[in-house]
Amino acid sequence: MPKTYAPPAGRNWDVLSSQCPSRTSLARIANKWTAMTVVVLDDGPLRFGDIRTALDGISGKVLTDTLRDLERDGMVTRRSYSEVPPRVEYELTPLGRTLQGPLTALCRWAEEHIPEVLAARDAYDDR
Amino acid sequence: MPKTYAPPAGRNWDVLSSQCPSRTSLARIANKWTAMTVVVLDDGPLRFGDIRTALDGISGKVLTDTLRDLERDGMVTRRSYSEVPPRVEYELTPLGRTLQGPLTALCRWAEEHIPEVLAARDAYDDR
Repeated sequence: MPKTYAPPAGRNWDVLSSQCPSRTSLARIANKWTAMTVVVLDDGPLRFGDIRTALDGISGKVLTDTLRDLERDGMVTRRSYSEVPPRVEYELTPLGRTLQGPLTALCRWAEEHIPEVLAARDAYDDR
Repeated sequence: MPKTYAPPAGRNWDVLSSQCPSRTSLARIANKWTAMTVVVLDDGPLRFGDIRTALDGISGKVLTDTLRDLERDGMVTRRSYSEVPPRVEYELTPLGRTLQGPLTALCRWAEEHIPEVLAARDAYDDR
């Protein structure tokens, strides 16, 4: 019988509760590298090196960790092809695709509102 | 004349570029504490202690840093009332309110999909 996953009796999943597993999921998705990775994988499967090039400035270790964490949480699949040289591709799962809307919205928000944010920072720092 | 904020000539704001200021804004908003703070402030101004109680498990230092960073980036206002004992309230700015949609979506995603995420984690760990 497949294991079922349910919140504690009489309660709902709640990110505001420090003991709720949903908070660990929020921590994973509310992350700049996750957001950029999901946006970049929008176009389809990509190789590690291509993702690293797209996410300008990410270290190999951080990208490795990010992709492994996304794979563990069921949002990315890692597929390796027995070729020479070996080819490994990463692709969003259907679950990962459901994040594209909210995470693309965050990236676009950052780009659209950066003039206001920069003005606010200058005003704050001048106080 | 007010300072203007524009991307480098011939370029657009782009979170994928490590030098673009919009990435610093993405880092601020793609953060679990930011997401929960914005969701909690949906109901109107709150005192520090009330926010801390709502964000179960957050330390005083992390909440202080989160609120100060959100204030600096123009998303939260801090208002102190000369009362005894002193009262300080935090409220979303109009700019901060524009984040409620995307950040509430992230929190709801984490709660709605946690059964799938937990199942994926178990499958990954059993490999």
